[in-house]
Amino acid sequence: MDLATIIGIISGIILFMWAIFMGGTLMAFIDIPSAMIVFGGTIAATLVNYPFSKFTSLMKIIRIVFTEKPIDAGDVIRTIISLAETARREGLLALEDAAYQLKDDFMQKGILLIVDGTDPELVKNIMETELAFLEERHSEGQGMLETMGALAPAFGLIGTIIGLINMLKNLDNPDLIGPGMAVALVTTFYGSLVANLFFIPMAGKLKVRSREEILIKEVMIEGMLSIQAGENPRIIEEKLKAFLAPASRKYVNSNKDIESGEDIA
Amino acid sequence: MDLATIIGIISGIILFMWAIFMGGTLMAFIDIPSAMIVFGGTIAATLVNYPFSKFTSLMKIIRIVFTEKPIDAGDVIRTIISLAETARREGLLALEDAAYQLKDDFMQKGILLIVDGTDPELVKNIMETELAFLEERHSEGQGMLETMGALAPAFGLIGTIIGLINMLKNLDNPDLIGPGMAVALVTTFYGSLVANLFFIPMAGKLKVRSREEILIKEVMIEGMLSIQAGENPRIIEEKLKAFLAPASRKYVNSNKDIESGEDIA
Amino acid sequence: MDLATIIGIISGIILFMWAIFMGGTLMAFIDIPSAMIVFGGTIAATLVNYPFSKFTSLMKIIRIVFTEKPIDAGDVIRTIISLAETARREGLLALEDAAYQLKDDFMQKGILLIVDGTDPELVKNIMETELAFLEERHSEGQGMLETMGALAPAFGLIGTIIGLINMLKNLDNPDLIGPGMAVALVTTFYGSLVANLFFIPMAGKLKVRSREEILIKEVMIEGMLSIQAGENPRIIEEKLKAFLAPASRKYVNSNKDIESGEDIA
Amino acid sequence: MDLATIIGIISGIILFMWAIFMGGTLMAFIDIPSAMIVFGGTIAATLVNYPFSKFTSLMKIIRIVFTEKPIDAGDVIRTIISLAETARREGLLALEDAAYQLKDDFMQKGILLIVDGTDPELVKNIMETELAFLEERHSEGQGMLETMGALAPAFGLIGTIIGLINMLKNLDNPDLIGPGMAVALVTTFYGSLVANLFFIPMAGKLKVRSREEILIKEVMIEGMLSIQAGENPRIIEEKLKAFLAPASRKYVNSNKDIESGEDIA
Amino acid sequence: MDLATIIGIISGIILFMWAIFMGGTLMAFIDIPSAMIVFGGTIAATLVNYPFSKFTSLMKIIRIVFTEKPIDAGDVIRTIISLAETARREGLLALEDAAYQLKDDFMQKGILLIVDGTDPELVKNIMETELAFLEERHSEGQGMLETMGALAPAFGLIGTIIGLINMLKNLDNPDLIGPGMAVALVTTFYGSLVANLFFIPMAGKLKVRSREEILIKEVMIEGMLSIQAGENPRIIEEKLKAFLAPASRKYVNSNKDIESGEDIA
Repeated sequence: MDLATIIGIISGIILFMWAIFMGGTLMAFIDIPSAMIVFGGTIAATLVNYPFSKFTSLMKIIRIVFTEKPIDAGDVIRTIISLAETARREGLLALEDAAYQLKDDFMQKGILLIVDGTDPELVKNIMETELAFLEERHSEGQGMLETMGALAPAFGLIGTIIGLINMLKNLDNPDLIGPGMAVALVTTFYGSLVANLFFIPMAGKLKVRSREEILIKEVMIEGMLSIQAGENPRIIEEKLKAFLAPASRKYVNSNKDIESGEDIA
Repeated sequence: MDLATIIGIISGIILFMWAIFMGGTLMAFIDIPSAMIVFGGTIAATLVNYPFSKFTSLMKIIRIVFTEKPIDAGDVIRTIISLAETARREGLLALEDAAYQLKDDFMQKGILLIVDGTDPELVKNIMETELAFLEERHSEGQGMLETMGALAPAFGLIGTIIGLINMLKNLDNPDLIGPGMAVALVTTFYGSLVANLFFIPMAGKLKVRSREEILIKEVMIEGMLSIQAGENPRIIEEKLKAFLAPASRKYVNSNKDIESGEDIA
Repeated sequence: MDLATIIGIISGIILFMWAIFMGGTLMAFIDIPSAMIVFGGTIAATLVNYPFSKFTSLMKIIRIVFTEKPIDAGDVIRTIISLAETARREGLLALEDAAYQLKDDFMQKGILLIVDGTDPELVKNIMETELAFLEERHSEGQGMLETMGALAPAFGLIGTIIGLINMLKNLDNPDLIGPGMAVALVTTFYGSLVANLFFIPMAGKLKVRSREEILIKEVMIEGMLSIQAGENPRIIEEKLKAFLAPASRKYVNSNKDIESGEDIA
Repeated sequence: MDLATIIGIISGIILFMWAIFMGGTLMAFIDIPSAMIVFGGTIAATLVNYPFSKFTSLMKIIRIVFTEKPIDAGDVIRTIISLAETARREGLLALEDAAYQLKDDFMQKGILLIVDGTDPELVKNIMETELAFLEERHSEGQGMLETMGALAPAFGLIGTIIGLINMLKNLDNPDLIGPGMAVALVTTFYGSLVANLFFIPMAGKLKVRSREEILIKEVMIEGMLSIQAGENPRIIEEKLKAFLAPASRKYVNSNKDIESGEDIA
Repeated sequence: MDLATIIGIISGIILFMWAIFMGGTLMAFIDIPSAMIVFGGTIAATLVNYPFSKFTSLMKIIRIVFTEKPIDAGDVIRTIISLAETARREGLLALEDAAYQLKDDFMQKGILLIVDGTDPELVKNIMETELAFLEERHSEGQGMLETMGALAPAFGLIGTIIGLINMLKNLDNPDLIGPGMAVALVTTFYGSLVANLFFIPMAGKLKVRSREEILIKEVMIEGMLSIQAGENPRIIEEKLKAFLAPASRKYVNSNKDIESGEDIA
């Protein structure tokens, strides 16, 4: 549950409803045809831009923005150190049982490759290829939301121009100019608001989440290769902690003292 | 047949025709001189920007956006594994017959180079050069559509300024100001709509298709080099699956169980 | 204390208050609902864009813009040369005491790794990983301020459109058009001013400070690796001074003559 | 003679003259002071931006956009294969005569370096340095046209603001407002039109031409290094054809059958 | 003395004064408060963005735009060839005297390192580090001018919004609307003009000058390493001329014939 996303969206919606009520009525801002121009146009252009298979994954992508709980880097490091200790005491083959208890598919795959006696270069190759394509898939999701964030204001503007042309063509009654322009501006309002409150910041959240996940997976790769190389667990810890912010490092230490490496999770 | 492109464009056109009918008449939005300024100007500037040989390939590029059916990565991986098994059983020379049955020119060329006993470094060099220039040719097609997507709104604006100047010069009858501005705005409408519904999303679709094709070809190169190196088919499968999304990987497995590597296609 | 930031912000605020007083009253520019739309909208969208943990570090990031005092590169170089001399005279183990007197955590960690007899490749690896992630954390802070610098004018514009729609819907009294538009424009004023006087330049200051800190840490890594390699202090000085602007180099020399390398700080 | 550039520019000019005649008189769009503001301002700022030596090469750069005839890659490949055959039959020294008959300076220089017995690494180094700086000089030409394409609309806007200020200061006669604004808008029209019909697409054409030339020179470098290494002409052909689009490759083959490698050009 | 900068700025100022006189009076464009908003705001935000040490170097940076005389690449190449000949005839130690006569500090430092018998890898390392940081310092200067070029129009717009709000709040006398808007627009005029005639093109000139200086220094590094490696002066000339445009190369040759390498400058 990503509380920041939910609080941001709910507080943003309340804020703009309040802002509208302050100076007018909500009805002036609800216009079904305007909504159809902005959202319909954005969806139509997004379909031109992306294949169905990507477009239908949009809901799944948006769900990540609301729900993704980041993996704790400290947990990962402690797990790796614990695995390294097992490997040094009992050999690499002893990691097989531990591997099946790992919750993370990426790490499980890596450890099983090591247990199989795969060449270290090949393990590195496979894990880094997987990470590179994970990164690319993530950036496609961001790209779709960024595209929608650029299209929505554009279709908002197109809707306003349609409204202006219609209004200007029928300029018989000057009293209708004001309300006509008001309606025309509603599409610009819709397009700018969904882009700046939803699409663009959601793409940003995906990017932050993606970077966190990639950092964790880089720690995993570095750790697994060190385990395969039979490095000293203390050296491994030193190497992996360099990936973290100084604040997070202390957390790794303190927990380790308490739980003494028993948490293979 | 790229259904998403076709549905996107048709639904976009219907949407904007409906939006126009809602508030006015279609006639207010049909203006031949405006269309000529926007489309003529965009085509003229595109001719300044690109040589004829590139410009005439525009129709071919746009056709890709409507028709391209992506190659299935799972099929490619199964084909490579099947070739790898043949190579291990009967030697690299046995791949010649299989090569002539391959539908993909890129893979056929690679396998034939291998059968010819070409040095692995040279095979890699040739295939990667070909891929690099394929990527550059693709990005030129995208570039042309992106250029047109930037030019169309610019000429829309220029058309509106021409309309405004003409209107302002002849301000005798104030009743004509409104309709005059309406006509002037039609060019901006044309330019923004074609850019945001056609040119820019089409460039985006080309980019997605190009990335898919390049990914497939990277899988092919990696696979063919592994075949040449005489690697174990199981290891090759493991390596190639790292290129795919986890969901696509399962599909590779399930099909393999059913079809057991007979589909050299 | 970063005087430039403080003088810039205070003089900017005085300037715009004076500019407002010149042509009108301050009251015309103070509007609580407008402020809530711009700042509330910016904060809501920033929460959608960043997780809580990053958002709450915003205050800490802004504090850096006001307080960060850069480390002097000359001091660092003199310290490294002094350590190099100690290492050559008394061996690498003799650096342990000096290490505990170093104020900089990064350098202390590196020297202790060297004293522990860590492999030079691993020392380099650990220090560079740490530097790379420091750089990434810095760029996240800048990114947040840049995001806010892009969101604030966008929400300013959205607020102005809300104001315009409300005004145009109620066009009964033409005398209210002017003041209504004035109020609508206040949100654009707020959004543009905070973006251009605060958010964007603060992101810029963070970037400058980050580059300075990274340069210093690159000097430290280069210096520590040279110490571990047992290089001649004179060569080390020559190498490290290449990182500095010619003006700063003379400063290193002149101070060194006076203080003759005693300042392990 | 680059027909696309010439047709694009002439058709663009005719189009906009026609568009102007449709709705008004050409006189409304001819205004010497407006032209001076836009073109004079653009030239003045370009002089601030570029040294005289670069600025005076502008005419030469623009001439390339109109005249450059691209070298045919097929010809280059056939020439290289023919040279490779000579080298294999008669030795590298036999290339000296052929070199003096080459029309291309770049290739001539490379072949002469090879004939001189220069170290292959050094040949590669020299040719690639030359190519890198050719690329940089090309991108400077593009950069100047892009800069002018950004400056022209900016000075168009500045001219319009000057016109608006002058008009608003002298608002005695409301009948003059319209014509005054019309004149003010002419600078925006000039700036947008020259940027979008001339400067920006010309920079684009230069980029396309530059990429073509660099591709040809990359083929040349690859080919010359292969000749020096004494590679098989058939392998060289295979390697070089990887640089081309599949369509161009067939052309290389068909011509080769007819002309059988006699065209050292 | 950079004549292009001076002619560009003077002709630009004369042009815009003439343009203003054509259609109105200069007085309409001189407004001290407007100037203070634009320039004061830009300076305040620049102080927030850059530390004092960088900001105070602004005048020095601007002086470069007016005065920098580029070093001639031909002179540098001739000097290097002359040094190479000396080194081959009399040994590397004989370069010490010549080094002290070199006007260029960068080259002097490199030659002295060579004379000292420094390891070639270390010479390369030191010279390239110095070049990398020179490039970064240059790009900081450009960055400051580009930042000011982005801030000035932004504060111009903010000033116009302040003027509009003040005017709209006091709409008692419709006769004052025109002059009020005229004054409000003056800040936009100031901001756009200084950005497009001064700040942005000056940043561009700095970039051109920086590239020239870096190219020269790359030639120097390549040349000095070749001298140290004891390469043949003719080969060195061939290598270094690859850095130059073909036109400049002939100039190197022709001068060399006349002056026969005596100009160690």
